[in-house]
Order: sequence, then structure tokens, then C-alpha cells
Amino acid sequence: MSDRLGIWMIGALGGIGTTIAVGARAMDRGLVSHAGLATLRPEFEPLGLAPVGDMVFGGHEVRSSDFWSSAYQIAKLSGSIDLEIIQKLRPELEQMSSRIRPGTAIHCGQAIEGLTDEGHVRAHHGLRQAVDEIRADLAEFRAEAKVDRVVVVNLASTEPDVDHAALPQDAAELEAVLDGDQVERIRPSLLYSYAAFREGCGYINFTPSTAALCPAIREVAIKAGLPFMGDDGKTGETLVKSALAPMFKYRNLKVLSWQGYNILGDRDGQILAHKDNLASKVRSKDAVLQGILGYPLHTHVGIDYVESLDDRKTAWDFIHFEGFLDHRMSMQFVWQGCDAILAAPLVLDMVRLTDLAMRDGEGGALEHLACYFKSPIDVAEHDLHRQFHELGRYLASKGLAATP
Amino acid sequence: MSDRLGIWMIGALGGIGTTIAVGARAMDRGLVSHAGLATLRPEFEPLGLAPVGDMVFGGHEVRSSDFWSSAYQIAKLSGSIDLEIIQKLRPELEQMSSRIRPGTAIHCGQAIEGLTDEGHVRAHHGLRQAVDEIRADLAEFRAEAKVDRVVVVNLASTEPDVDHAALPQDAAELEAVLDGDQVERIRPSLLYSYAAFREGCGYINFTPSTAALCPAIREVAIKAGLPFMGDDGKTGETLVKSALAPMFKYRNLKVLSWQGYNILGDRDGQILAHKDNLASKVRSKDAVLQGILGYPLHTHVGIDYVESLDDRKTAWDFIHFEGFLDHRMSMQFVWQGCDAILAAPLVLDMVRLTDLAMRDGEGGALEHLACYFKSPIDVAEHDLHRQFHELGRYLASKGLAATP
Amino acid sequence: MSDRLGIWMIGALGGIGTTIAVGARAMDRGLVSHAGLATLRPEFEPLGLAPVGDMVFGGHEVRSSDFWSSAYQIAKLSGSIDLEIIQKLRPELEQMSSRIRPGTAIHCGQAIEGLTDEGHVRAHHGLRQAVDEIRADLAEFRAEAKVDRVVVVNLASTEPDVDHAALPQDAAELEAVLDGDQVERIRPSLLYSYAAFREGCGYINFTPSTAALCPAIREVAIKAGLPFMGDDGKTGETLVKSALAPMFKYRNLKVLSWQGYNILGDRDGQILAHKDNLASKVRSKDAVLQGILGYPLHTHVGIDYVESLDDRKTAWDFIHFEGFLDHRMSMQFVWQGCDAILAAPLVLDMVRLTDLAMRDGEGGALEHLACYFKSPIDVAEHDLHRQFHELGRYLASKGLAATP
Amino acid sequence: MSDRLGIWMIGALGGIGTTIAVGARAMDRGLVSHAGLATLRPEFEPLGLAPVGDMVFGGHEVRSSDFWSSAYQIAKLSGSIDLEIIQKLRPELEQMSSRIRPGTAIHCGQAIEGLTDEGHVRAHHGLRQAVDEIRADLAEFRAEAKVDRVVVVNLASTEPDVDHAALPQDAAELEAVLDGDQVERIRPSLLYSYAAFREGCGYINFTPSTAALCPAIREVAIKAGLPFMGDDGKTGETLVKSALAPMFKYRNLKVLSWQGYNILGDRDGQILAHKDNLASKVRSKDAVLQGILGYPLHTHVGIDYVESLDDRKTAWDFIHFEGFLDHRMSMQFVWQGCDAILAAPLVLDMVRLTDLAMRDGEGGALEHLACYFKSPIDVAEHDLHRQFHELGRYLASKGLAATP
Repeated sequence: MSDRLGIWMIGALGGIGTTIAVGARAMDRGLVSHAGLATLRPEFEPLGLAPVGDMVFGGHEVRSSDFWSSAYQIAKLSGSIDLEIIQKLRPELEQMSSRIRPGTAIHCGQAIEGLTDEGHVRAHHGLRQAVDEIRADLAEFRAEAKVDRVVVVNLASTEPDVDHAALPQDAAELEAVLDGDQVERIRPSLLYSYAAFREGCGYINFTPSTAALCPAIREVAIKAGLPFMGDDGKTGETLVKSALAPMFKYRNLKVLSWQGYNILGDRDGQILAHKDNLASKVRSKDAVLQGILGYPLHTHVGIDYVESLDDRKTAWDFIHFEGFLDHRMSMQFVWQGCDAILAAPLVLDMVRLTDLAMRDGEGGALEHLACYFKSPIDVAEHDLHRQFHELGRYLASKGLAATP
Repeated sequence: MSDRLGIWMIGALGGIGTTIAVGARAMDRGLVSHAGLATLRPEFEPLGLAPVGDMVFGGHEVRSSDFWSSAYQIAKLSGSIDLEIIQKLRPELEQMSSRIRPGTAIHCGQAIEGLTDEGHVRAHHGLRQAVDEIRADLAEFRAEAKVDRVVVVNLASTEPDVDHAALPQDAAELEAVLDGDQVERIRPSLLYSYAAFREGCGYINFTPSTAALCPAIREVAIKAGLPFMGDDGKTGETLVKSALAPMFKYRNLKVLSWQGYNILGDRDGQILAHKDNLASKVRSKDAVLQGILGYPLHTHVGIDYVESLDDRKTAWDFIHFEGFLDHRMSMQFVWQGCDAILAAPLVLDMVRLTDLAMRDGEGGALEHLACYFKSPIDVAEHDLHRQFHELGRYLASKGLAATP
Repeated sequence: MSDRLGIWMIGALGGIGTTIAVGARAMDRGLVSHAGLATLRPEFEPLGLAPVGDMVFGGHEVRSSDFWSSAYQIAKLSGSIDLEIIQKLRPELEQMSSRIRPGTAIHCGQAIEGLTDEGHVRAHHGLRQAVDEIRADLAEFRAEAKVDRVVVVNLASTEPDVDHAALPQDAAELEAVLDGDQVERIRPSLLYSYAAFREGCGYINFTPSTAALCPAIREVAIKAGLPFMGDDGKTGETLVKSALAPMFKYRNLKVLSWQGYNILGDRDGQILAHKDNLASKVRSKDAVLQGILGYPLHTHVGIDYVESLDDRKTAWDFIHFEGFLDHRMSMQFVWQGCDAILAAPLVLDMVRLTDLAMRDGEGGALEHLACYFKSPIDVAEHDLHRQFHELGRYLASKGLAATP
Repeated sequence: MSDRLGIWMIGALGGIGTTIAVGARAMDRGLVSHAGLATLRPEFEPLGLAPVGDMVFGGHEVRSSDFWSSAYQIAKLSGSIDLEIIQKLRPELEQMSSRIRPGTAIHCGQAIEGLTDEGHVRAHHGLRQAVDEIRADLAEFRAEAKVDRVVVVNLASTEPDVDHAALPQDAAELEAVLDGDQVERIRPSLLYSYAAFREGCGYINFTPSTAALCPAIREVAIKAGLPFMGDDGKTGETLVKSALAPMFKYRNLKVLSWQGYNILGDRDGQILAHKDNLASKVRSKDAVLQGILGYPLHTHVGIDYVESLDDRKTAWDFIHFEGFLDHRMSMQFVWQGCDAILAAPLVLDMVRLTDLAMRDGEGGALEHLACYFKSPIDVAEHDLHRQFHELGRYLASKGLAATP
């Protein structure tokens, strides 16, 4: 297929966006393996997914930076990106940065506002104009980068928790709100997702900012026959939880308490140190266990900012459970992963699979991508294995022979 | 159904056998919950499995003890059995001990020999006679306990590793060997399993003593139309491994090294401190990861004796893996479980399901029980979730509505 | 020496008080070893400390219970007390309960109030009367139990944090406050400690309730020539911290972050789930590291309530540090201890050493006991080893030959 | 003082030697902090120790490499050395490599032999000639580098365990052995240390190769009035043990079992995968606990090779202990440190302090350096805190005001 695929990243120069860009280029140059990217396993070849090396990158960003500088900083601070690799990719990374546009910060909350750089936030002249400007960015990208299809991915910092009752309830009300200026009824993520669907793009909400795919927005997407999925990429502690909890169920071991603590530094941690932003996140992480186990239990999800860790997120989970003769036992795990490294390939996987859906004219929630999310839209199943089984069934329907 | 089910336990007064006996009685008296026993979850009710409270217990044992004394010792040492509960059950436990018979220790290896008590090991007058005596014990149990079906379960200490090439290769050669006296070609577990099948019993090999279900023995069972399954119950560290490894596969995270250390005390640990006996165990634990992940990787399974821990087995696993951009990350887990507590309900689950197979005239390897074993006979699948899925499919064929 | 020593415990029937009582009786009967009690090591013999078996127990309690019931409940819930041991001690434990008196709950905060039982809280008729009633209890104990010296130990639940500026500033103001009824200026712990000193007792503040030994109270004690020490027993996570932090200093390894999480159930955890009460505790735990390391660093002390754990407190600490070439490394520890088991022998140690001071006419802060406290009064040194070294020096001055 | 200090490293281009060289240059250039180096803390200034930036480096090495290549490889593999830093230091590192001389491999054992490169091992023409060649290298270094004093440091791979009874028993026998050719009675480390003392150098044995400072060799040193110390640098797990074990003693908590597992890759791990070499190491690590606690206990020190970890050594220790009422509790720690990063500054600390001794004419075992060793020569004390206290006392005698 000769078509070209564009990825438009909201929060393009953050840790995940930068890691995606570096990874795509490094893979194309053969500098690194395919590790982390499930859709590059040989079993997926029959699907003819868009080659990672041909993808074109663009995006919005509210901070002053570029792919090279951001990659360099990550290489120095967390070490998750190899300095020699980006030294080799420097010209490409600098060139790719020309497709980054200033973002919007309307009603994004204090924590995120504190991160913005002058000249990188669009002036606010009404919601409708904000949306139109985002749409113009997307249209320009499509035209200049000569891409046939675009998938927009939300990688921006977690917004403060939103009151869903105050959000527009359907597409009509949404249009009315965009024509007014009640900024407190929206969040930036909603403006981006709206613009994406109006420009015919697929959309992946990788963050816990649930305004992005609220019912009114989904109505817009479904009417346009466009695919989307979210919320909140399942990368670390929650991934492990959803892989492990079924085991307790199989053995009828009663989980009494599942206590989890996440510590992390970097921008992500800084934002989550704000109570409002944290609320969005914790809600997303907390539903998983009861969903899988089928009974109420004591759970706790702590997230604390530890600056020195940078992006080397560390999680400690303590699981207290009761077995035969009501005897109590425990299990603990420590997860030490780099969030951007874990997240970046999931985004690439999903962009390729969203593109597949677009090529086949499939709109609506891509429920088969549930295994990638902490709070999968329209999917009640949190068991990672059953979620992955569903992905396998979907892919089989697309011609995949072997179960991946 | 008015039939009664008998369980005959080889190594009846060890930690697992004692815990099974206490648990069955305690459940019958409503002193404890059903935790640990999957087949007592409401979803399983339609199967009409044999009630745990009606099961009749008997078994072989080479040490001098009884259910009450053994339970009391466990209550004092590891605390996994509640003292007050067994004080209430004392008369029943003492009465149940009357069905224990002396075992055989022919060619069982030095470690196990060291545990035997005088008067509790049958004198050795030839293999055939040994087998006949075991058969007589089983026949007597069936008659006196008035049970309709018997499932024999091997819970004895791990035997030294066996050279499978030296074992009898088919049923005919097996008969010849039993008529001779080349004791070094057999292991006690083989004598027990042979006797079991000749007495029309189902058989579960919960240990890593693979002589028990070697091909020649299976031939005997299959000819008799009797069900069996093994080897080596999946209770702790390996259970977690087989639940967790698929997650790395889904995400294409390349596991570089999976290093595991188990520390435990009690009789089990003492036996495994013997190199020959350890070999049987480690082989059984080590195949799991490569089987699930599909590529060779560095693995290590250490088992060390730490007397003070008694049956509070503790395992530390360190998993080193590579993700996107070939970045290395790690995960660790610590499992602190009581082995007998974890094992006992699996045995009860399997006895009930083996009984179900016998009622329906199913013989041969019960492959649907693979999720209960480290080295499931005739099953290549080690992924716990796929194994459990298979169990679900089998049970659906038996009329189970909901996936368990 | 023929004199008898009395211990008066505030919060006598809580986990620590009960464990002390059981332990003292069990040791006297030879049912358990001396583990946990440093002053029973042979090196301490030359000091001629009061024999643990001869101590007489009394105390205040605001809940309805007795030593036997409380011990039985602990045996069942956390298993830290052996059921058989208390079955043997039952008559003694029941008899000892006759010396428990109702306590005061004046301005103790909502969390503690919620725990009190009717009939076990003295009616409130003014601060002076409250103090007089406590004094009467102590005087009666001294007379009826025929003890020569009494050490009062505060083991009651952590009070809400107190505003030290609002407390009476000196002994004169204290007397005035006690004659008035501004209950919001005091805490129960202050009434108890005042009464103790007025009755000629030594006083150990094992809790973080700092009102107990505020400056005005200390003035009373010093005038009376009575010894005291506090605050907050160093039993678990903080103990480890203060043992480990010096190591980083010796090696000039720069600790960047020391992140600690404590999870626990039982009454203690329940009280600390209240924000006000937690504040007292966390302040006490947090000063240790900077004190030892000598530079500011990122620290965090989390305490969360996990009901199922009961008294099996579990702490996870993550230490992030920088070494040569500014390379970052980490250390983690998990502490799984039973708080009452760890605390009880420290109280007995200190009661014996306080008694020693009283016998030798030493009043004021017993600075040599700093190693037993998270916030040792008048001692800036938090390094456990230097603190213990100081105890050794003091004991040497009392005739101890060998360094303990 | 205008004198110059030379360091001669045996195994100069290994991980530790390379890290020392890079660190000394990077500190001199102000590229990194002083972290890890205790003797660079301000308190040590009054001692006037040799400036790290003025030290001159030389050494023996049996592999083909140079400081730059070795540093580059470390930067790529374990990441413990920063790539940008060594890019800046490249000319210096290349120049420093000119002072590296081929080493001896006489009777070094198979594991080490396997690492040697052709042309980097001196041909073997008798022990005396081997020693003379080493001496010539040292003399040449002293002359050409214009250094006033030289400290030789053994950083070479752990030799196979040696039979001390077969080693020369005194200086006279040693001379006789060197004149003969019973190579099986010696180890390379012994040839190096002998040569060092004959050339008037101080000597630090940072490895567990105990032949280096066997009694006959010490006799040579003492006669020459030269200082030395060893054996086996205390960098990681054992460091933590010796810091933590005293805590259990203070509280009279009875340690039942202390089970430790070390996993590591790189050359060090590879060598220790050889049973003979491992024996030297484990013996050194294992004496510590009983020494501190004063009673026999169950201990285990495992060391396993995990290639993917490279130099990121990870240790898991499980400590099982008994407290009041004989209740059992546990503590675990995980140490994740880079061995070379931890070791390098200790070597620099000790070289500076050995130089101080040489300046003051002090010969014999530098017992005040015990805190740096797993098996400190002539020192029975293993408690890290008491060892450090002794260092403080020694330094006070040298004019240090504040306790470090």
C-alpha cells in the first residue's frame, strides 16, 4: 500500500512523544530491536500494518523545546534514551521538530499552566476559534506532510479531574458550548478530540483526561464513522495488577487488601503531585481489581513525587490474601520501569491498529484495544488475558493465522 | 448421588495430607470459609461434585504419627493451622488416623529413608509382594469405608531424580520387572501408582516424582480406562511465573533473565536440600518460562533449606527485561505462602474433578487439569490463563453455564 | 534487694500493655525465652535491675476489657501471642486485671473518643479533679500492691497533634490551668504525667503525644527529682532508618530520597488513619534522617490503615542515593514486624532502667535512653549506634564491665 | 606538600580500575561531585591528604584494552559511567593507558586464564624472574612518573581459593619458593604483593585473594616498615549486613536465619561462577554476622551469574528473627548498586590514607581501615559502626578535630 500515515501527538515533546519519535527513527535505521512493540512481532505481518519507519510525525506542544533537546535531556536525566543513538539521529530529530505547533491551555488547571512557555500557547479568543486553529493545524499537516490518514494521540499531562455532569451532554450541546465561552465547562483535551474528529482523524486517548472522549465527543466521532479508544494507557503497575489478579481468582484465594504505591519524578510526577490531577489518575487505576475479582476489597493506589527518580517509576504493591483454612499469606512486587519507554510502543501499536480500522472503515470505540488501557471505553473486562484474547479474536477476523 | 468418595493419600500425615484432612473436617463443621477451593465457588455447583464433607480419608505413611499430632505440630511450628480449630476436631482427627497403613520405602533414596520410623515401613520381600500389599490396603479401604470410588493422591516427599531410560518401557516389561527384584529400576511412587490402577482407582501425582506416571504405568491406566494427572502441583512461585510471563509476551517485552530463589524449612525443604531430590524439583519448575515466552532465556531456580521458616515458603524472583529502545528494566516479586495451605485445596479440587471423570467413564490424562501442575502430562501449554481457559471449556462441556 | 517495682500503664489493655503483661508472666514461668529484652542479656546482670517476674502491674484503660480477653483476641487476630501460653496463664491474667482503673478522655480527640466504652471513662468534673482522681489511683496502687517505686508508662493511642504554644508554659501556669477548665489547652497525656510526678513516680512517654512531657511538666518532674524520658518508642521502620543511615554517611553516599510507607491495621492503625493523630506521628518519624545525614533531603513517611494486617505492620522503604561519578543507585527494605511484640520489651527495658535511676536518685531526662525513642528528649543524636554507645557509657558508670 | 603519589593497580583496566581513573580525572576537571569519597568530605581537610587530581596512575593488566575503551564499554553496557564525561576526558584516558604493563598469570586458575589476551601476559621463566619483572615495572613507574611514594592496589579478579598450609610459612621459606619453581604453591597476587614491598610500596588487597597478604608476605612488609591492609573491599551486601546486624543485637532480637543472594553479570560475575573462585569470596562474606551477633546462626551467601545485569549487582537478603514471646518476624532488603562505582572511591580513600601512614612512617596492618574490608586483617570487629569509630579515633590522633 502506498499510503502514508501521520501521527499527531498532543504533548508531542513530552517524554512519551519524544521516545516515540526517537524509537521510530532508530528502528528505521536499524539501531535498536523491535522490543516493546507487539505489532512488529512476526505473527502480525499478514495484517500489512503501516510501517513504523514511514510514519510522519507532528503535534501540539505548550512548552518550548524540540525533539533533539528533549531526547538529549532524557538521555542525561533518566538514561532511558541512549546518547549515542540520538547523536546519530540528531539531524532527523531536529528536522521533525518543524511540524510542532503551539497548543491550547484553556482551563487546563494550574499545574499544567505552570509548565507552559511563552509563545507556545495559543492566545485565547473563544472556544470556537481555539478549535478552528487546532483544525487548521491538522489540515495543514495532512496537506504538507502528504499523509493519507492521521491518528491523533493525546499524550498531554493529566488534566484536573472533570465533573462529567457539567460537560456538554450531547453533540448539539457541545456545539453550543463551543460557540459560547463557558471555558469552565470544557478541558483542552476535549477541544483537541473534537478538532481531530472534525478533521477526519482517528483518536487515541492515552491519558486519564476523560473529557477527551466524553459521550458528546463520542457522538461526534460515531457520526463521522471514525475510530477512537481510551482511557489511560496501561503501562506499569496496573498492567501487572491486571495480569496477576486473575491468578487469585482461579485459585479462589481471597484478596483482602491490595495496597499499591507508585513513586516517580519528572513532569508526570510533578503534575500528579497536584491533588486535582491525581484524582483523575487514581480513579482510573482503582477499578481494575474489583472488576477482575468480583468482590469488594480494600485497595489503595498511592502516587508520590520523588524528583530524583525522574522517569524511573517504581511501584511497590502489597497483596494480602486468605487461603485454605482462612490462613493469611502475602505477595509483594516491585516494578521498576521507565514510563515513557513502556508507553511509547503501546502508542505505536495502537496507531497502527487504529489505522487498520480506518482503512477498513470501522468507526466507534475500538474495544479490541482494551488491553492497552486502564479504563477501556465500553469494556467492563479488566482481566489482561481476556482482553488480549479479544484482541486475538479481532485480529483473526482480519486474517491473522496464529494467536499472537 | 448417594455414592461415597474415598481419597487415599500417599504420605498421608505430611503437611499437605494433614492440612487436607483438617480442612475437610473444618469445612464440614462450618469452622472455616471455602477459600482456596475453586470447585466450591458457586459457579461449580451445577456439576454436582462429591461433597467435601462426605469424603473418606485413608493413606500410607512411613512415619509414626496421626492426624491430630501432625496438625498440632503444624499449629505450633508454622501457625498455618489454627489451634482452636483442631482442638474442636480432635476426636474426628484421631478417629481418621485409624485408616493409615505403613508404606513402602524400597529404593526411595537416603533422604527419605532418613525420615522413616520403625514399624511404619513394610518389610521388603520382593516388588510383587510390595505391590500386592499396597493393593490389599486399597481393597480393604474400599470395603471397610464403603466407598464407591477411590482417588489415590501422591503427596509423598520428592524422590531422587530417576533415569527414565532405566524404567520399564511398557506394561509388559513393567510386569516382568515387578516379578523380579531389580529394585534400582523402580521408585516407590511407581509401585503405588501401579497398585492404584490395578485396584481401579484414579490417580493424581501431586509431586515431582515422575516415575509414578511413566509411560509404562500410563499404559496400565489407559487399558483400565482410569483417569490420572500430574506432575508436581503448581502452588507458589511457579504459579506466579505462569500467571505473569504472558504479560511480557503480550507487550513484546523481552525477558533477559528470570532468577528465582525459594527458601523454605520443614520436611519438604529438608528433602530438597538433598541434591538428587532437588534435581527432580528444579527440572519441573524450569520449563515453564521458555514454554510461555517462546524463546530461550537465562533462568535459575534456587531452592534452599532455611529451617526457621518451617512451611512459610518465601520466594524472591527477579525479572530483568528489555523494552522499547532496548532499555532494560526490572520487576521483582516476593511470595510468602504456606505450601501446605496452598496445596491442600488443589488436591481436593482435583480429587473432585477426577471423581467426575470416573463417574463419566473418562480415562487417560486429564489434560484439563493442566492449570494445577508445573509439568502437566501431555500438555505443552504453561500459560496459566490458557490452561484455566481449557478447564473452563471442559467444564462447559459438563454443563457448567458460567465461565469460572 | 527486697523492694518491689510497680508499672502503671496508661492504655493498659491495648496491644502493647497486654503483650507486656503476658510476656512478664510467661518469662516468669519459663514459657518463653528472653528475646527482645536487652536488659536480660547476661552482660546486664551486674546492675541488679528489678526482676521482671516480680514486677506488679496496674493501669488506666478507657475500654472495657481485661488482660485475658485482650490477649485472647490478639492470639486470634494477629497470632503474635501464642494461644497455648495464655491458656496456661489465664488465672494470672484475669487476676492482674483487677488493678485496672477507668481513664480520662478529656479533650482526647474524636478518634480516641470513638474507642471508649461506657463505664470506663471517668466523668469530667474539672481538670483538677481529674488529676486528683488519677493521683488517687496511683496512691492506692502503691499502697495495695505494696510496691516501693512506681514507673508510669504512657501506652495510650496517639493523641491529635497539640499546639505547644497553647500549652501551659511553666509549672505555675500549669497549676493555674489545672484549676480552671480550659480543657482545650491540655491533653489527657498531660494530666497523667502531671499526676505521676506528683505521686513520686518515674515516667516514660512511649507515644508521640508530646503534651505528656511538655516543658511545664518537665519542670514539675525536675523539681521533684524524678526521672522521665520520651517521646515515641523506636520500634520498627524508624529503628531501621537510624541503623542504616549512618552507613551512607560513612561512605559519603549522598541520599537523594528516602521514601517510606507503613501499612498496618488494628487500633493503632485506625487511630493514625485520623489526620490529626497522624500528624503527631509523622513529625516524630521524619526528623531522623536529616539529623543523621547532616543535609536536607527528600523524605516521606506514609502511614496507611490496612485492616487485614492487624498488628503485622509492614513497611517498605526506598532509598535513592548517589555515589561516585554521581551515579544513582538504590536500596529497598521491607520490614514485617509485629508492633506490640517489638514495643513491649523496650518498655520493660526502660522501666527497669528508670527504676535504676530512681534508686540512685537521678532526676530529669534520661538521655541515655535516647536509643529507645524516635524523638528523644534533649538529645539531638539520632544515630542508633551512637545512641547505644551512650547507653553503654552510662551503664559502665553504673558498674557494667562489658559493653553491651 | 610537593610530593607526588603514584597508584599502581593490579588489574588496572577492569571495572574498578577504569572507574577510579575516570573518576579521578573527572573530579579534577570538576565534572562530577565528590560523592562516594569519604576523605574528600570537609572534615578530612586538616589531614592534608594527597590531592586526588595529582595522583599518577599505572598498573598491570592481562587483557588487551586501554582506559578509554574500557570506560566506553562500561558506559555502553552498565551505564555507570557517563558517556559525555568520558568523551571530554578521552585524550587524558588514552594518555594514561601508556603506563599499563602486561601482568603475570602464573597459577591463576582456569577462570582467569580464560580472560587473558595474547601479548598481555608475561612469559613465565621462573617465579624469581616474574617477581623481578614486576619489580622493574614498579621501579620504572616510580622513576618515569616522578612519584615520591607508590601504593599498590590489588583489583584483579578473585583467584581460586588457596590452601594456606601449602603457602610459604615465613619470609625465608618464601624466598626459597621464589627461587624454585613450585608454581602450585603460589598465586599471582602473592608475586605482586612481594614485589610491591620489595620496591618500598604500600599495599592494599581489595580482593578476596588471600595469598596476597599471607603471613610470610606480611613478614616481608613489616620488616620493611611498610603499611598494608586487606582483604576484600566491603562495598555492597556485606556493607549493609555489617551496618544492620548490630541493630538486632541492641534489641536482643535473635536472628535465626540470614539468607543472602547476590546476582551480577560482567567479568566479576563470570569469574565467581567458577566454584573455586567463589569459595574465596563466600568465605570472606560469611564470617561477618556471627562475629557481630555473637552466636551461631543459619547464614547463606549465594552468588550467581546473570549476564544481563552486567555490573548492576543486585542482592536480596532475607532476615528471619525472633522477638519478645519468641514471636518470629522478618526483614528483607534489596541492594541495587554498581560494584565498580561503590568500590572505586574506597580504593581512593584507602590509597590516600595509606599514603598518610607512609608519610608518617607507619608500617604493618592498617587496622583503622577495617571498615573498608569484609575480612579485615588482624581485626576481629565486624560491626561497621565500631570499625568507623576506630577510624575516627585514628584520625583524631592525626589532628582531625571533628568526628567524621
